[in-house]
Amino acid sequence: MKYEELDQFIKNSNYQYLPHLSVDCVVFGFHENQLKVLLMKMKHADKWGLPGGFVKPEESLETAAGRVLQERTGLDNIFLQQFHVFSDPDRSDTATKVDFLKNAGKAFLKDDWFLQRFLSVGFYALVDFSTVNPTPDPLSEACAWLEISEVKSLIFDHNHILNKALEVLRLQLNYQPIGYNLLPDKFTMPELQKLYETILNRPLDRRNFQRKILSYGILRQLKEKRKGVAHKAPYLYSFDLRKYQKALKEGLQDVW
Amino acid sequence: MKYEELDQFIKNSNYQYLPHLSVDCVVFGFHENQLKVLLMKMKHADKWGLPGGFVKPEESLETAAGRVLQERTGLDNIFLQQFHVFSDPDRSDTATKVDFLKNAGKAFLKDDWFLQRFLSVGFYALVDFSTVNPTPDPLSEACAWLEISEVKSLIFDHNHILNKALEVLRLQLNYQPIGYNLLPDKFTMPELQKLYETILNRPLDRRNFQRKILSYGILRQLKEKRKGVAHKAPYLYSFDLRKYQKALKEGLQDVW
Repeated sequence: MKYEELDQFIKNSNYQYLPHLSVDCVVFGFHENQLKVLLMKMKHADKWGLPGGFVKPEESLETAAGRVLQERTGLDNIFLQQFHVFSDPDRSDTATKVDFLKNAGKAFLKDDWFLQRFLSVGFYALVDFSTVNPTPDPLSEACAWLEISEVKSLIFDHNHILNKALEVLRLQLNYQPIGYNLLPDKFTMPELQKLYETILNRPLDRRNFQRKILSYGILRQLKEKRKGVAHKAPYLYSFDLRKYQKALKEGLQDVW
Repeated sequence: MKYEELDQFIKNSNYQYLPHLSVDCVVFGFHENQLKVLLMKMKHADKWGLPGGFVKPEESLETAAGRVLQERTGLDNIFLQQFHVFSDPDRSDTATKVDFLKNAGKAFLKDDWFLQRFLSVGFYALVDFSTVNPTPDPLSEACAWLEISEVKSLIFDHNHILNKALEVLRLQLNYQPIGYNLLPDKFTMPELQKLYETILNRPLDRRNFQRKILSYGILRQLKEKRKGVAHKAPYLYSFDLRKYQKALKEGLQDVW
């Protein structure tokens, strides 16, 4: 394609979206014990960045974030949670945006909608990346899962947004349950522990982990054991969804 | 005053502020074992609401929230934390705003800046209200501390914003320290416990509370005891600010 779509996009934006406001999505993927993040490479820009976009006049932020992620990556029905608004007036430098428009061969005015200041609402989600197939939109050259440790310098303040999301996720591990939608319906204790270890990026004590996670009452131990294991087959667990949901809202335990 | 200031405010807003974006501040006050919230009664509106305002083109949200609170209530140097963006497209109903403008005797156009949709970023803070003296701004009839349990129906979705702030605060008690800036430099264990009980709105077991709070390592027991107490004078404590700050960032304890 030529630049018609891009032109149309930027032109339409003057009317179709709320000014000054964007959303950026930090989608963490967990697969085979690795923590990855979904990134995109925009055409005409030399760097990778988070999938992001704008808010329509009739949309809530949650609706906008879901739509943006779907349109840009093909990912559907992802449960995204807002975690912070990034509002430093200098966060999206104009020079980068001017370069982008120039590289795209597009004429623009000094007060172009696209060149103005944007406050961005950060959303994050955790998904099992084996179930999804990210596809770049027409504005993007690529859309791919990168291992967290391999992420280099991103566009604008996207490294900062990614790090903040990681910080929130790790803090959240201390007071909210995770795992549903990330693990299969039935899983073993070592599999659940590995998820926590991957996010925290360090090994955990097996017995301490088991004692703690069981004390929250969000797990159901099943009668079945993992099949196909020679001996000492581990028990299978599933989440007690009612208690899981309650813990999401009220916290994992009543500390006080 | 007549309506000149109000006129000027709304007129200026077309140029001075980012469109569609507001901030609302939930300021909790703790004093004599009561949890209160700072509310304002706008002139020409029949209801109370949270102190709120708009964002200037060159401001971060944090700067804007601090300025708004200062301008509207006289409160200065309050540490405000953003906790959620309220973005339901129907959250600020136009009818209420039209009534407000009519009651103020102001002419307005159908696409008036003030009548358009607003997304509001919620900020919250905890302060010792004995140290502050809230003063209403020219747009407001009153500015007062109301006991949480006595708060009636507020303007727009402000009850929802207040409830969400309370929910976040109570959840936060499970993983982040509170108390600094709310209690005097030196305080007794019962005083700290009362703060937690007030926020959680229920009594706590004395021994359990003491064991738990000491286990976090954020307190320093002082050699002095509370003076002027006949017998069994309680020990005084202060916060270990370095550990307190660390716990704010990383969580009260490493659960895993």
